[in-house]
Amino acid sequence: MDAYLQLEKQFKKLASYHHLTAICGWDQATMMPDGGNDARANAMSDLAVLCHETLVAPEVGEWINAIDEHIDTLTDEQKINVREIKRQWAHATVLPSDLVEAKSQAGSKCEHQWRKQRQNNDWEGFATNLKSVVTLSREEAKKRAAHTGLTPYNAMLDLYEPGMTTEKIDALFADLKSWLPALTQQIIEKQKTVALISPEGPFSTEKQANLGQQLMSLLDFDFNHGRLDVSVHPFCGGVPEDVRITTRYDEEDFTSAIMGVIHETGHARYEQGLPKHLSGLPSAEARSMGIHESQSLFFEMQIARSPEFVAHIAKMAAETFERQADPAFSLANMNTLYKRVQPGYIRVDADEVTYPAHIILRYEIERGLIEGTIEVDDIPALWNQKMQEYLGIDTEGNFTNGCMQDIHWTDGSFGYFPSYTLGAMYAAQFMHAMRKDVDVDACIRNLDIKPISAWLEKNIWSKGSTLSTEELVIQATGEPLNPEYFKQHLISRYLNS
Amino acid sequence: MDAYLQLEKQFKKLASYHHLTAICGWDQATMMPDGGNDARANAMSDLAVLCHETLVAPEVGEWINAIDEHIDTLTDEQKINVREIKRQWAHATVLPSDLVEAKSQAGSKCEHQWRKQRQNNDWEGFATNLKSVVTLSREEAKKRAAHTGLTPYNAMLDLYEPGMTTEKIDALFADLKSWLPALTQQIIEKQKTVALISPEGPFSTEKQANLGQQLMSLLDFDFNHGRLDVSVHPFCGGVPEDVRITTRYDEEDFTSAIMGVIHETGHARYEQGLPKHLSGLPSAEARSMGIHESQSLFFEMQIARSPEFVAHIAKMAAETFERQADPAFSLANMNTLYKRVQPGYIRVDADEVTYPAHIILRYEIERGLIEGTIEVDDIPALWNQKMQEYLGIDTEGNFTNGCMQDIHWTDGSFGYFPSYTLGAMYAAQFMHAMRKDVDVDACIRNLDIKPISAWLEKNIWSKGSTLSTEELVIQATGEPLNPEYFKQHLISRYLNS
Repeated sequence: MDAYLQLEKQFKKLASYHHLTAICGWDQATMMPDGGNDARANAMSDLAVLCHETLVAPEVGEWINAIDEHIDTLTDEQKINVREIKRQWAHATVLPSDLVEAKSQAGSKCEHQWRKQRQNNDWEGFATNLKSVVTLSREEAKKRAAHTGLTPYNAMLDLYEPGMTTEKIDALFADLKSWLPALTQQIIEKQKTVALISPEGPFSTEKQANLGQQLMSLLDFDFNHGRLDVSVHPFCGGVPEDVRITTRYDEEDFTSAIMGVIHETGHARYEQGLPKHLSGLPSAEARSMGIHESQSLFFEMQIARSPEFVAHIAKMAAETFERQADPAFSLANMNTLYKRVQPGYIRVDADEVTYPAHIILRYEIERGLIEGTIEVDDIPALWNQKMQEYLGIDTEGNFTNGCMQDIHWTDGSFGYFPSYTLGAMYAAQFMHAMRKDVDVDACIRNLDIKPISAWLEKNIWSKGSTLSTEELVIQATGEPLNPEYFKQHLISRYLNS
Repeated sequence: MDAYLQLEKQFKKLASYHHLTAICGWDQATMMPDGGNDARANAMSDLAVLCHETLVAPEVGEWINAIDEHIDTLTDEQKINVREIKRQWAHATVLPSDLVEAKSQAGSKCEHQWRKQRQNNDWEGFATNLKSVVTLSREEAKKRAAHTGLTPYNAMLDLYEPGMTTEKIDALFADLKSWLPALTQQIIEKQKTVALISPEGPFSTEKQANLGQQLMSLLDFDFNHGRLDVSVHPFCGGVPEDVRITTRYDEEDFTSAIMGVIHETGHARYEQGLPKHLSGLPSAEARSMGIHESQSLFFEMQIARSPEFVAHIAKMAAETFERQADPAFSLANMNTLYKRVQPGYIRVDADEVTYPAHIILRYEIERGLIEGTIEVDDIPALWNQKMQEYLGIDTEGNFTNGCMQDIHWTDGSFGYFPSYTLGAMYAAQFMHAMRKDVDVDACIRNLDIKPISAWLEKNIWSKGSTLSTEELVIQATGEPLNPEYFKQHLISRYLNS
C-alpha cells in the first residue's frame, strides 16, 4: 500500500508539471511576443527533461515492482491506476536514452526545416531529414515491439490508441474503401445542381469571436473553467480545470473559424468532464486520441452540422454580422455551405465525406514506412497514385500540398493518423446509441443541450481512462466499433436529405 | 572549474523554473478563469518546492565548498557569479526546514484571512494571526543574524536590499524627517490657491489601454519582448526576455491607470536592459528592490510627472478621448493634477511628497516588531500616533485604512518597506547625475528618450547584480546615496515652479 501511495504522489507531482507545460505552451502559442521564444523554448525544454526524469526515476520502477506483491490489497480504482501508471512508465522507459535523444534531435531538425521546405516545395531537402526520422522511428518501433509483443507498427499505434491494431484497422478501412468512393461520387453528383452563395466579408474578428463565444455557451462550455483565444494553429490545451481552446480568424470567411470553435469545444467538454475525484491521476486522463477526436467530431459533425443546429448558426450569424437580409445567410444556403462535399488536396480542409481517404492513404504509407516495405523515396509516387485512386486528384510534383502538408511525420509521430477517422466512426456510433435514449433532434432544435451532454458525460467523459477503449465503446453502445453507423450517417445526411 | 560549471548549469535550470513560475503566475493574475485556481495553486506550490529543492540540493553545497579551492582560476565575471550564488544559497539554506514550513503556513493563513478581515475592520482577528507570523519572523531574523553576523532586522533588510542597514536608514530617514514635514506644509499651502478641474468620465478601457501603449512606445518599451495586460493589482512580471506588465482601469479616471503603466514601464525597462550575455545567471538579475523601485520611480516621478512630459500626456489624452476642447485636459490643469500633494490614509495612493512618511512609519514599527521592542498589540496606537505626527491624520479605530492596509506583513515580508523610499531617493540622485551628461528636459520635450535610456542602460540596467548597490550608486553618480537630491527635486518641482 505504501508503494501505491508513493506512486500516486509521484504522478500527482508529474500532473503538476504537465499543468505548467500546458499553460506555458498555451501562452507561447497565444500571448508570447516573438522575442520571448528562445528563453521560453529553453525553459520548456528543461521542463520536458524534468517530466521525463520524474516518470523514469529509479524509485518509480521499484514501487511498481513492489506493488505486484500486494495488488490484492488495492481497491478496483487503485488497480486501474496501477494499470495506467505501468502503461505510461513502460512507454517512457522502454527506449534507451540515446535513442530518445537522437530521435528528438532528428525530429526537431526535420520539423524546423520542414516549415521552409514545404513553402519551397523542396522534397529533396525534406526527404534527407525524413530518412533519419524514419530510421530512428523504425528502431523505436522495434524496441517497443520487443517489449510489448506487438508488431512494430502496432506498438506505435498503441501510443495514441491503446489496444488498436492493424488487423482491426485493416478491416475497418477495407469496409470504408468498399463503399465510400462510390458514395462520394453520388453525393458530388447530387450537389452539382445546388447553388451556393458564399457570404462576403469583411467579418470583423471581434464579431466572429463574439459569435464563437455565444456558440460555446449554447454548447455548455464552462467559462469558469476555460477560455477562447487566438493562435495560428487552433488547438485545445490547458488542463481539465482550465481548458484553453483557440481558433484563427479570417475576415473574409467566418464559417470556418466558427466551426473550428465548435470542434475545439468538443475536445474541451471532454476535458472538462473527466472524472474530478481522480484528478491528477493517470486514470483521470482522456482515454485515447481517437476518443478525443470522437468528441470534437461529435460536436462538429454530429451536432453542429445537423440542419437543426445550422439553423441556429444561420440566425445568430445574421444577427451578429447584421446580415438578416443577405441571402447567403438563409438557412437553406448555410446548410448547403456546411454540407458541401469536394475532393481537395488538403486534409485539414476536407469535409467529412472525403476526409477518410486522406487518412487511409497516410495509414497505408506510414505503416509501410515502419514495417520497411516502403522507403522515403517511394512516398511521392505512392501519394500521387493513391490520391488519384481515392479522390481523383493529381499531386505529381506538388509536394507542398501533397506529401509535405502535415507536421506529424516530421517528428516521427507515426501511428497517430488513424485516430482521426476512428474518431469520426466512434462519433457516429455514439450518436446512434444516444438516439435510443435522447430525442437529439428536438434537443438541438430547442437548444437544450443538457440531455446530450449528460449522455456523453455518463458514457464517455466521466470514464476517463478507467476502461479500455473497446470496453468504453461496448459499454456505451452495446457493441465494438462498427463502421456501419458512420456509413448510415453519411448516407442520411448527404444523400437522403 | 568543474564545480563552477556545475553551479552555472544548476542555476540556469533554476532560472528556467523561475521562468515557468513567472509566466504561470502572470497567467493566474491576468488570464486564468476563477475555476482554475485550485489546480493552479497546487501546480505552483509543487513548482515552488522544486525551485527550493534545486537551490538547496546537497551537491550545490559541495560545489560551493569545492570552488573556494580554485577560486583564482575563475574570471572576474565568474567570481561575481559565485558571490551571488553563495548569497542566494545562504538565504535559502540558513533556515531549518520546519521553520520555513511553519512560516509559510502561518503567512498563507494570515494573508488569506486578512483579505476578509481588512474589509471587516477586524483588528482582533488579524492580530491573532499576525502574532504567529511575527513570532516566526523574529525566529527567522535571529537565525539569519547568527549566520550573517548582522543584527536581526539588518539580516531581514539584506533579503531585499543587500548591504542596507538600520544605521544607514536611520541617518537617511532622520534627514528626511528634519525637513519633509515643513516642506509638505509649505507645498500644501502653496497649492491651496490653485484650482483643479477633474477630468470627467467615462473613459473607455479600450482607449485607456491604447493611450497606455502609446506612452509605453514613447518610453521605448520593447513590445517584441513584453506586453501590457490587466490585473486587479498592477505588477511587473515575466522574464527579461518577455516582460509582462499590468494595470487596472477605472472608467471614471484615466489618470491613475496611465501613470501606473508608466511606473511599470520603468520596472520593465530595467528587466529588458539586464545583461543578456549573463542571462540565466544570478549576476544577471536585478540588483535589489530599492534599485528596481528607483527605475519605476525614475520613469514615473523624474520623467513622466515633469511638466515637459505632462504636456505630451495632456495632448495625447485629449486626442485619444477626443476632449481637445475640455479645460480639464489643458496643460496647466494636467500639471496641477499630476502635482497635487495631499496627505491621505493610503500608502499606494500617496503622492511623492507624502509617500516617505508612510514608509518611515512602517519602518519604525516593523523594526521594533523584529527587535522585540514593539508587540503586535501596540501597532494600532503607534500607527495613529505616527500618522498624526507625520501627516496630521487620525486613524483611531480605522484599521482597514490604517495598520491593516498593506499585504507585506501578512506573510512576514519584514524589511521590504524601506525599498520604496530608498528607490525614490536613488531615482532623484540618478537624475541629478544624468543631467551632467544629458539635456534631459530637451530630450523629454522632443520625445527623444534614447539618450536617457542609454544613460540608464549603461549605468544601471547592464550592471545587473555585478556590483553591490553602493558600488552601483557610486559608479553611476560619484557618491553614495545622498538624500539631498531628493530634497532638491521636491523643492524644485513643488515650490519653485
